[in-house]
Amino acid sequence: MLNDNDFITNCNVPGPTKEAIRAIILYKADIKNTDTIVDIGCGTGGLTCEFAQRAKKVIAIDHNPQATNLTSQNLKKFKIKGNIDLKTDDALNALKKIEKIDIGFIGGSGKELNEILNILNEKLNPNGKIIITAILLDTKIEAINKLKKLGYKPQIMEANISNGRVLERGVMMISENPIAIITAKKKGE
Amino acid sequence: MLNDNDFITNCNVPGPTKEAIRAIILYKADIKNTDTIVDIGCGTGGLTCEFAQRAKKVIAIDHNPQATNLTSQNLKKFKIKGNIDLKTDDALNALKKIEKIDIGFIGGSGKELNEILNILNEKLNPNGKIIITAILLDTKIEAINKLKKLGYKPQIMEANISNGRVLERGVMMISENPIAIITAKKKGE
Amino acid sequence: MLNDNDFITNCNVPGPTKEAIRAIILYKADIKNTDTIVDIGCGTGGLTCEFAQRAKKVIAIDHNPQATNLTSQNLKKFKIKGNIDLKTDDALNALKKIEKIDIGFIGGSGKELNEILNILNEKLNPNGKIIITAILLDTKIEAINKLKKLGYKPQIMEANISNGRVLERGVMMISENPIAIITAKKKGE
Amino acid sequence: MLNDNDFITNCNVPGPTKEAIRAIILYKADIKNTDTIVDIGCGTGGLTCEFAQRAKKVIAIDHNPQATNLTSQNLKKFKIKGNIDLKTDDALNALKKIEKIDIGFIGGSGKELNEILNILNEKLNPNGKIIITAILLDTKIEAINKLKKLGYKPQIMEANISNGRVLERGVMMISENPIAIITAKKKGE
Repeated sequence: MLNDNDFITNCNVPGPTKEAIRAIILYKADIKNTDTIVDIGCGTGGLTCEFAQRAKKVIAIDHNPQATNLTSQNLKKFKIKGNIDLKTDDALNALKKIEKIDIGFIGGSGKELNEILNILNEKLNPNGKIIITAILLDTKIEAINKLKKLGYKPQIMEANISNGRVLERGVMMISENPIAIITAKKKGE
Repeated sequence: MLNDNDFITNCNVPGPTKEAIRAIILYKADIKNTDTIVDIGCGTGGLTCEFAQRAKKVIAIDHNPQATNLTSQNLKKFKIKGNIDLKTDDALNALKKIEKIDIGFIGGSGKELNEILNILNEKLNPNGKIIITAILLDTKIEAINKLKKLGYKPQIMEANISNGRVLERGVMMISENPIAIITAKKKGE
Repeated sequence: MLNDNDFITNCNVPGPTKEAIRAIILYKADIKNTDTIVDIGCGTGGLTCEFAQRAKKVIAIDHNPQATNLTSQNLKKFKIKGNIDLKTDDALNALKKIEKIDIGFIGGSGKELNEILNILNEKLNPNGKIIITAILLDTKIEAINKLKKLGYKPQIMEANISNGRVLERGVMMISENPIAIITAKKKGE
Repeated sequence: MLNDNDFITNCNVPGPTKEAIRAIILYKADIKNTDTIVDIGCGTGGLTCEFAQRAKKVIAIDHNPQATNLTSQNLKKFKIKGNIDLKTDDALNALKKIEKIDIGFIGGSGKELNEILNILNEKLNPNGKIIITAILLDTKIEAINKLKKLGYKPQIMEANISNGRVLERGVMMISENPIAIITAKKKGE
């Protein structure tokens, strides 16, 4: 279990994805130790750190070198070893070159979500899963519509989480921003 | 209609109560132009400014002189006139001296909520209303339990509001912290 | 102040829009007694009943005769009088024939949101307001994008409201479904 | 991964605890395969089914025989094997007789929360964890205050989750009721 506050952060890099959201993603991902996962837009590395503890291999991609650097630092800080391939590259470019995967996670996609989903769909093994986090309204609907077009039956969950500050005078709840988790499973063959 | 961002603020004074919460309070308060309202813990003056536009008289109390000063500044900024009595005083002390009221609003009560509700109950006209905003878990339950003891049938609504930032790349929702609105109506005579 | 539970309802007609949402809409609408309001997709009449108490005239439109009938019943039940024009008609058809308006409210739009906004924009007086409630993700983004294209600077607020059941064993919070309120103001001339 | 809708349910028995909440609890529990867990107020067995897949032993207690029966049925339905001790008994009575535990989970406590926490504290191994879900406002504050008295530093997270219905006309979000997750860790020795 990783604490949000223990991650090394950088104001130029988004994340880490918050604890409750990582928990929900991990539950939905249901990672096997034979799984290969691609983590697109790894940012601070919140989910890379989680995936790497559970999967056979994690390919983490971010076009921002500060992000892959930060992800690398956090993997070290939490002493997470494993088969982790960090790629500082455009998502589309990097995805074209990777092997078949069992789980495709998109934490950040810039304006390329549709194209990323096209390639992810090609690379995804039967029974594989696509998981997307979205903070923009536009991304939520774009992800669902594209997944439907690709033949998936997407699901969407939205989480509004607040955390208590246990003060002397009482417990005050502080909100995280709402975030949606979109999931889709590829049919078996 | 007042915009949250137009209020003059001071980091030593809480508030203003956010737009959606002011809206809900105003709806529940259902102020008549014959009503006298006491605003306990007026802070930045968010609700004082709203009440003063609708009621016959508003008595706004805060023990912090920076708060009553700020409330005064905001009333001026929004050019709100009316019968407004600003008292820099301890709530219990100030309440003892006021006339009968139609609406008692508690935006801040420190550790004196039970005692404040005792006096408010005495000062409240038949069919009068008590409205409390609570951000502490403890205050929510304390308010409900005390109102029940005083013979009221309290209601509680909790609001989790988020506001969109309409950016070039899409719409991102930013959360306000959760806040509860507790209301109770005194029986007619 | 109207209680949600006091409305006459019909399982074939959506609504009424819940109390907190009506409160926020009323605050944002800031209705003057000289205003003409069109209420598109009036459903159960939750907002028609509110608008009719505050505006000079309300034109309430719904293509479902059960909806306009229900709105009529609720206006009677709450003894709300005023200048109310109930139209059982397709929104686009009805809108083409109406006079200039100060506030256009869309509670339901079927698949015609873009076209409705086109006409609403033509009928809207300078400084007039458009207010839309959206429960579908698709409607939220469609409304914002269309309003931007029409030259507005739309705002969006999302409300997650829960209401307490004050039981013997404690207070249990029951959630309403999330709903977005989108607002836009026409420039003065 | 278990789907909420796959559980056998009974209107006389609360639960199952919803997917996102089970996910967050599992993340916070960070179960080792050497852990003994007690599940107090197991209800439908949502968490018993999760714990039993991960822990060395689960002791599930409910005073309602319909609950332990239902938990048993769900364990069978999901083909979950493991060391599971189902006790139809009053929580206090059952707890007195159990061995030392690593994780104490309270999903339902009736009016005995304080006493249950007293015994749980005695039975808890060093570095052990207490996790409580609370839907009543009263339980949230009672749990935090009691844990503080027992020397813990409790944390509280509140989750407002909504799930999308992907309909032909768009995606509608349906809310679950808010629920709090309170956690505390015992100091090592």
